[in-house]
Amino acid sequence: MKQKHEEVMELARRRGFIWPSFEIYGGVSGFYDFGPLGAIMKNKIIQKWREFYVVGEGFFEIDSPTITPEEVLRASGHVDHFVDAMVECQKCGEAFKVTDLAREQTGKYIEGAPKEEMEEFIKKNKMRCLECGGELGKVFDFNAMFRTAIGPGNKRVGYLRPETAQGIFIDFKRLQRHARGKLPFGVVQIGKGYRNEISPRQGIIRLREFTMAEAEVFFDPEDQHHPKFSEMAGEQLRLWLAKDQEKDDKKLTEVIVEQAVKRGLVCNELMAYYLGFTKRFLLELGIPGAAIRFREQTSGQRAHYSKETWDAEVLTERFGWVEIAGIAYRTDYDLSRHAKFSKEDLTIFSGGKKVLCHVVEPSYGIDRPFYCTLEHSYVPEGKRKYLRLKKWLAPITVGVFPLLNRDGMPEKALDVHKSLRSKGFMTEYDDAGSIGRRYARADEIGTPYCVTVDHQTLEDGTVTIRNRDTAAQVRVTLAELPRILHSVICEEAQFESVGKPVKE
Amino acid sequence: MKQKHEEVMELARRRGFIWPSFEIYGGVSGFYDFGPLGAIMKNKIIQKWREFYVVGEGFFEIDSPTITPEEVLRASGHVDHFVDAMVECQKCGEAFKVTDLAREQTGKYIEGAPKEEMEEFIKKNKMRCLECGGELGKVFDFNAMFRTAIGPGNKRVGYLRPETAQGIFIDFKRLQRHARGKLPFGVVQIGKGYRNEISPRQGIIRLREFTMAEAEVFFDPEDQHHPKFSEMAGEQLRLWLAKDQEKDDKKLTEVIVEQAVKRGLVCNELMAYYLGFTKRFLLELGIPGAAIRFREQTSGQRAHYSKETWDAEVLTERFGWVEIAGIAYRTDYDLSRHAKFSKEDLTIFSGGKKVLCHVVEPSYGIDRPFYCTLEHSYVPEGKRKYLRLKKWLAPITVGVFPLLNRDGMPEKALDVHKSLRSKGFMTEYDDAGSIGRRYARADEIGTPYCVTVDHQTLEDGTVTIRNRDTAAQVRVTLAELPRILHSVICEEAQFESVGKPVKE
Repeated sequence: MKQKHEEVMELARRRGFIWPSFEIYGGVSGFYDFGPLGAIMKNKIIQKWREFYVVGEGFFEIDSPTITPEEVLRASGHVDHFVDAMVECQKCGEAFKVTDLAREQTGKYIEGAPKEEMEEFIKKNKMRCLECGGELGKVFDFNAMFRTAIGPGNKRVGYLRPETAQGIFIDFKRLQRHARGKLPFGVVQIGKGYRNEISPRQGIIRLREFTMAEAEVFFDPEDQHHPKFSEMAGEQLRLWLAKDQEKDDKKLTEVIVEQAVKRGLVCNELMAYYLGFTKRFLLELGIPGAAIRFREQTSGQRAHYSKETWDAEVLTERFGWVEIAGIAYRTDYDLSRHAKFSKEDLTIFSGGKKVLCHVVEPSYGIDRPFYCTLEHSYVPEGKRKYLRLKKWLAPITVGVFPLLNRDGMPEKALDVHKSLRSKGFMTEYDDAGSIGRRYARADEIGTPYCVTVDHQTLEDGTVTIRNRDTAAQVRVTLAELPRILHSVICEEAQFESVGKPVKE
Repeated sequence: MKQKHEEVMELARRRGFIWPSFEIYGGVSGFYDFGPLGAIMKNKIIQKWREFYVVGEGFFEIDSPTITPEEVLRASGHVDHFVDAMVECQKCGEAFKVTDLAREQTGKYIEGAPKEEMEEFIKKNKMRCLECGGELGKVFDFNAMFRTAIGPGNKRVGYLRPETAQGIFIDFKRLQRHARGKLPFGVVQIGKGYRNEISPRQGIIRLREFTMAEAEVFFDPEDQHHPKFSEMAGEQLRLWLAKDQEKDDKKLTEVIVEQAVKRGLVCNELMAYYLGFTKRFLLELGIPGAAIRFREQTSGQRAHYSKETWDAEVLTERFGWVEIAGIAYRTDYDLSRHAKFSKEDLTIFSGGKKVLCHVVEPSYGIDRPFYCTLEHSYVPEGKRKYLRLKKWLAPITVGVFPLLNRDGMPEKALDVHKSLRSKGFMTEYDDAGSIGRRYARADEIGTPYCVTVDHQTLEDGTVTIRNRDTAAQVRVTLAELPRILHSVICEEAQFESVGKPVKE
């Protein structure tokens, strides 16, 4: 039996959600294209993220370059610490990221272990080259930033940013002025991030170029309170604590946000709030609650800037638990480093005293939740295979079909299609093949509703609407169609009640 | 007197539209950040572009990587031809782009001239180093792509894409299947493009990293007809023909789209249609028609892939005529090169015969129209200086103020602010300083309307709305406020008629 993952990816390629980049040149691992349907859906995920963080939290958005001069990333610690332990096959020369290889061959996480321990681990577990079975050499550090030169010659070194966050930190002075010095305030950035993976083998999950959405929340370390904490206090979290991981204990701790702080499981209100907020975002995408957990990074796994980090993870069939977002307590690490390296004073006045702000960072990838949403939406019901995408997230919201390609039905259906488009509905017109095949094609890409123009339309101005999930149909008048579609798409109206039921 | 450009840039920096990147590290020329207001406005320009090309024209959008392996850009011709003629000062070593230097020191365009002619030109015009006045050396080619290595070592060379277009061309097979083989069809991409400028000196106008929005329109070369040509036929164009440029004749040819094709000034309907379409887009941003012209590139100026290119140019105070978009007839150059280099068949069936599609490309930068819009919106009326931005484009649509900071006015104003936000209005609450200063601050960033809560609000539930452009005020009820704001913002309702006039 084909795996769900393979079926989803086959669908994604064939219908234009995502496909490997540079295909006609044989592809380069770690790069994916978003096709016509995928780009719409990706933009919708980004827009939803903005609704959460920009509209909902009132954060500012900025947009800074992906190319970053070396001095910024030296200050941020990335030149020294953004490294992957790498090992090469002594026979065929193939390179591997040690931690990936360890997980693949032994199921163990060895992130953060010293090089000597990694070499010990490789020996003990008789790990070999994945390509030729050859013996592996010494473990060494590989800086995972893409390097380039700015301007002619090699005088000015630059890197493609490993995170969008640094663009925010170095703008802190201007941004706090925009916030008029009020704390806490948040700044977000959405854009490309890069990691020059050594030899990525996990498709869309391990990309060298990806889209990030990051929020940096600046606050006075003496006031770690979130103004809307009470709204989040009762949200349920499933935590995999670092101490349990260290004991190889798979146990999850179920706790509400408020208790997570009170019991000292999560270090402050801001962190706990954004764990809850992240869960809500993932639920909104259509990820089931049972497939969401928060894993506390162990000290070896944490990035150099972090004091406490929680990974929001989503369970997938093919890749197991996948990290979707990281909520990190970056303390004043970044601001203090930039203050030191740039010799600028990055403190501000808060409550009459000078303060170097601390930072809590919810940082999301966009590509991984995109994939997880596809996998979790995929419903293989015997021969009928479809995407049960949330209605707002489906790339096409309404399919419009003529029942037959004659008697003026195509012309009428095209009119309906154009009229709905002009009212802001994302519609698609389709007249190819039998009506059953057209419904199946629409279901396959998650289109929640299909409108069909039939003989009766020409007589009495009514059309049928079909519901993707139940295949039930109702008949409504063309005059009411836009209002009714709006009510079932945006207002959760009961489908069966919006029109006259149609018997098959 | 300060130049308009300098005043606009000072405003842009201070209020958070744009500022030079990496400021605390001394900056790197060719990079700009979009601040909180700028990012909103930039996103609105992008969204408007989507309305034109994706919604209006029905084109597909895709999203492909910025990092591109060398073989793609070798096929596309960029490895060989995406070069700038460069010259170094023999005394201080400073590097210059020859064509920029020539324009700066002599006002002449020498794009496309052979290296020997450029050296001759430098000698004849006694051009010197801009930094130290030193003598300039030999002219040589500098490849203007940022180069990097994909994966460890230098085995796999990659470049940051010089245009988004190549990501579309190499996906042609998948894309034409998505279009079900119907011609013409269009595909767009919006994202970062890069040009490793030698020594950029023109701020936001000459960026090394910029946002592009490109459309590739694929068509059968035997049918160069645009399906909606008749809607565009009467649009007026101002053309600066190549033959006039070559005669140093500044004369512009005024002609409607239809006549431009009939008289053979523009090579086909598709090209002429997108000249008109581009003009409409620029008008929509608020660029006055008198500041828009189309310059035909001379054969020396055209890119290696183009048979005919028109630059849409906007007149600015500081930089003169600035290229905003290029509409290029790329023929089958790209598809034929990729077919040859990848050994894939990129032809399709059209009207029963095999066809290698031709391409017309409207390609826009987003950063330059952003700047031009700011400059053209800037109104220095004595002491009152403000941005007369189009209402849809203003980053903040409604300012909400309490007249005084007492008597419950701030609380009421905050309620209004939150209630309008929840209805989708982009509002900003401000209670700092006198009401006059707050109006001035809102005017300065182009906020079209300000709502003020005053004593009367607390008595009868009415507020004032103030119009940015006229400073006139009307009084309306809170209950009607959202509908009235919507009518003046989105429906062009006459401001004076929507409420009771307020006498100052």
